[in-house]
Amino acid sequence: MDKIREFVPLLDWGRTYSRHALSNDLMAAVIVTIMLIPQSLAYALLAGLPPEAGIYASIVPILLYTVFGTSRALAVGPVAVVSLMTAAAVGEVAQQGTMGYTAAALTLAGLSGALLLAMGIFRLGFLANFLSHPVIAGFIAASGILITASQLKHVLGISASGDTLIDMVASLVAHIDTVNPVTLVIGVSATAFLFWVRKGLKPTLVKLGVSPGAAGVATKAGPVVAVIATTLAVWGLGLTGLGVAVVGEVPQSLPPLTMPSLSPELLGTLFMPAVLISVIGFVESISVAQTLAAKKRQRIDPDQELIGLGAANIGAAFTGGYPVTGGFSRSVVNYDAGAETPAAGAFTALGLAIAAVALTPLVYFLPKATLAATIIVAVLSLVDLSILRKTWFYSKSDFYAVATTILLTLVLGVEVGVSAGVVMSIALHLYKTSRPHVAEVGCVPGTQHFRNINRHRVETDTSLLTLRVDESLYFVNARFLEDLLQDRLAERPEIRNVILMCSAVNEIDYSALEILEVINHRLKEIGVGFHLSEVKGPVMDRLKGAHFLQELNGRVFLSQYDAWLALGSLRHAAQ
Amino acid sequence: MDKIREFVPLLDWGRTYSRHALSNDLMAAVIVTIMLIPQSLAYALLAGLPPEAGIYASIVPILLYTVFGTSRALAVGPVAVVSLMTAAAVGEVAQQGTMGYTAAALTLAGLSGALLLAMGIFRLGFLANFLSHPVIAGFIAASGILITASQLKHVLGISASGDTLIDMVASLVAHIDTVNPVTLVIGVSATAFLFWVRKGLKPTLVKLGVSPGAAGVATKAGPVVAVIATTLAVWGLGLTGLGVAVVGEVPQSLPPLTMPSLSPELLGTLFMPAVLISVIGFVESISVAQTLAAKKRQRIDPDQELIGLGAANIGAAFTGGYPVTGGFSRSVVNYDAGAETPAAGAFTALGLAIAAVALTPLVYFLPKATLAATIIVAVLSLVDLSILRKTWFYSKSDFYAVATTILLTLVLGVEVGVSAGVVMSIALHLYKTSRPHVAEVGCVPGTQHFRNINRHRVETDTSLLTLRVDESLYFVNARFLEDLLQDRLAERPEIRNVILMCSAVNEIDYSALEILEVINHRLKEIGVGFHLSEVKGPVMDRLKGAHFLQELNGRVFLSQYDAWLALGSLRHAAQ
Repeated sequence: MDKIREFVPLLDWGRTYSRHALSNDLMAAVIVTIMLIPQSLAYALLAGLPPEAGIYASIVPILLYTVFGTSRALAVGPVAVVSLMTAAAVGEVAQQGTMGYTAAALTLAGLSGALLLAMGIFRLGFLANFLSHPVIAGFIAASGILITASQLKHVLGISASGDTLIDMVASLVAHIDTVNPVTLVIGVSATAFLFWVRKGLKPTLVKLGVSPGAAGVATKAGPVVAVIATTLAVWGLGLTGLGVAVVGEVPQSLPPLTMPSLSPELLGTLFMPAVLISVIGFVESISVAQTLAAKKRQRIDPDQELIGLGAANIGAAFTGGYPVTGGFSRSVVNYDAGAETPAAGAFTALGLAIAAVALTPLVYFLPKATLAATIIVAVLSLVDLSILRKTWFYSKSDFYAVATTILLTLVLGVEVGVSAGVVMSIALHLYKTSRPHVAEVGCVPGTQHFRNINRHRVETDTSLLTLRVDESLYFVNARFLEDLLQDRLAERPEIRNVILMCSAVNEIDYSALEILEVINHRLKEIGVGFHLSEVKGPVMDRLKGAHFLQELNGRVFLSQYDAWLALGSLRHAAQ
Repeated sequence: MDKIREFVPLLDWGRTYSRHALSNDLMAAVIVTIMLIPQSLAYALLAGLPPEAGIYASIVPILLYTVFGTSRALAVGPVAVVSLMTAAAVGEVAQQGTMGYTAAALTLAGLSGALLLAMGIFRLGFLANFLSHPVIAGFIAASGILITASQLKHVLGISASGDTLIDMVASLVAHIDTVNPVTLVIGVSATAFLFWVRKGLKPTLVKLGVSPGAAGVATKAGPVVAVIATTLAVWGLGLTGLGVAVVGEVPQSLPPLTMPSLSPELLGTLFMPAVLISVIGFVESISVAQTLAAKKRQRIDPDQELIGLGAANIGAAFTGGYPVTGGFSRSVVNYDAGAETPAAGAFTALGLAIAAVALTPLVYFLPKATLAATIIVAVLSLVDLSILRKTWFYSKSDFYAVATTILLTLVLGVEVGVSAGVVMSIALHLYKTSRPHVAEVGCVPGTQHFRNINRHRVETDTSLLTLRVDESLYFVNARFLEDLLQDRLAERPEIRNVILMCSAVNEIDYSALEILEVINHRLKEIGVGFHLSEVKGPVMDRLKGAHFLQELNGRVFLSQYDAWLALGSLRHAAQ
């Protein structure tokens, strides 16, 4: 029973659900539903899918996350970055607007769900750590730029295409002569209005005496106002006759039961994109969930989150949706609107289901330019390039990883960009560890403490060479130590004993062990003692199993000070 | 001038060349030449190339290595593992025995040479360190098994094919009914004879009073004896009429001038194989060179070695050869035979050039079975699977990397095998660092030394939590620390101060810095101090540039003992 409860958190919070929580959850659900309708339509547009796919992707996935997820405030559904990645991945196997495109999006959601579920069951949540913070920040910023570029065509009323910034801009420029002036007016006004709502409305409301929380929620209603106003304008003034592209007919129905294609070829092509979408979606979702949970001192279980997101995506695959994840803006609205339990999500799903059945005819005259404006205003807040400056001053290797991620995301697309970021940060880390910092240390006078002879005033002993290697010894840097020791010994023939101070050596792998054996052998031949000090417990346990310690031409000292006392030519009176 | 001398070591040793060295070098060259003739023919057979390619690959490459290489004993030419890798790579673009196959081998040599040269010029020799010792050992052992399997068809006198062990064995079994009995007799006798020469001859000669060195050289002549005896047998008894496959006509000529194809498609396909061949060849060559140099206290410059090997391979590409590297057996013979300078290599090249012009008609009746026997006996000594046992007992992660390398090399071929080994050892290393060892430490009584409370009898203080993280803090493990601290604080509400002992923290990257800021912020909120101790110089330099230290709700102590004195509730009388 406890096992079941572990995998189905609903059983946990469901037992203590109160009337008070119910009313708060219902209130939050109404607000979130209203906000989600235009957002879902907009993100479907961004993903290149029919508008209803965005609504469908917000219904069953939310319900499934409610059952399996651990966050009490996370709202699952289509989000900007994942929609962009979906468009890039599905665009490679089918043409936008075709049946194959919609079907491939289902398969992508199913595959991504299966991967998330598998990662959760096998407790592989730590894999997300391989995406460093700067790489994520860079990727999100670059995606924001790409998304903005991809939506400009709707604001301008022209047709353009492309997966990379250069292609998009080139395509926009090539079609610039076909700009539709009426669309442009709608698009630019909507964008300007939404920017004002975001930046100027909240202070104004607060000044008028509205509480900051309520004012915050009100600003989220901006897109709804823009949608209603521009839809009425297009309908009332007959602007479709002037070439304004509108959402058009959206089927009035509950999410349909769909079967994602399982053709091996399609699964093969979509596999890597699905991996990237899963990992990016998971990282985005878990950051949002942890930020919100920390505020209420609640706990998020990353592996259980994987199961919740996996179930949500599989749900999307079978109900006409596309890949989903926990979104930042919708979750924050949910939280600010007072959602107390995941039940708020279930009520939101109900609200969207009602909308899907009853309200879709109302969006017939909704201009695509308005949806594009809501996307642009939402994602431009993601474009924060300050990470470049921050990493430049703190750590050049982080900077290179971020810069590569941003550049390649813009120039070669999202998949190449984020993969390059991961590979680059791992490669730079390995490169750094391949040339470790090695300090020759001496005793800080009057203490038992040893520090770098080049940075501190310390006592040294000419017959003793103590090297502190500031890195684990493993295959990548093992030979480095061999070369270094050989150089030092050649320079200073008076050395009688070498001590390797292992306080920073967290591992000695088999390659390094072999090199230590070689060093020991060579030192023995020239009559120099080879000693170790401050070897950590786990490293020592392993060395005890090898022949190395029996062959060692010297001793292993618990502390460097013991070694100093035993081997130093200067004998110290008091310990 | 010094710059030129750096890149052309010949100018260095050439100036002091003595008559004594000349006679030693000449003697060594005669011995090596005799040994190289059958070996070169055999490795060409292994690579699927016409026999003369093996001879050509030993002439100009040796000369170029003599000019650019740094090892005084290394003999460059075709070697077993690289020949096998050549067969696997070229077999993917052309059929054995066709013109395209020979041409692709030239391109592979050229590409590999260009890569080596580039790595040398950009001082990228350290990249070879990414191949861990156990992975190399496993790969060489598995290659030995593959090579043996690939040569069995010649011993049996049947035709078979395949790049993987399963394919080879299946193909052998399928053709087993066509075994040629006479070939089998020749092949088995040659193999048995060569095994005896290798194992039994040297002790016998030493017992008869021959010096061990000379006896060692004599055993290397075994293949020459086998070649002469079986060639005479086939010729004298007319065994070709009974279906014994022989080397046949070999053109009598100096190495021809050849142009490797530079078609982009071919270069693209051969790129990854060329990378692997370059790296494996370099690693094999440098190990041999360093082993021999250490015996005479000479120095090997890895980056210059890359240039030497690069030049040798480019030479092979333009003179009808195929990828070459420094070989173990030929270098050892060269060394044992008394070679003093790289000039010995030049004389060997001269000897082989004479053989190519004058002696090739003599190998017409040389049975392929004899060549296969020389290969099998040579490579079986490489098959040392003890690395599996050794790594199993020392380090499981090294074991998994080796086992994967061996298994995949046998089952999926050399390229997949060695790539998987590299990826696996890096992934396992990262995995280990993602869950670092963290020890809570206390003071070893009477000293200023701090050790793990679970391993040593130490003094502790309930209001103080000192954690020593045994790993650099970077993106892969940053979140781990956050979770761990949160758990510890929840368990022990009496903690007033947290000290992070950084003696093993060799780096704090930007992701980890952000996490430290989060931890500092949370601890400040609950009124717990956050301190660092024993921060290394390079880490401290970087932290000073960040805001973190200004915001720190605590202090940075030079030594853990200082922190213990300042923060502990137990005040210590004497320092």
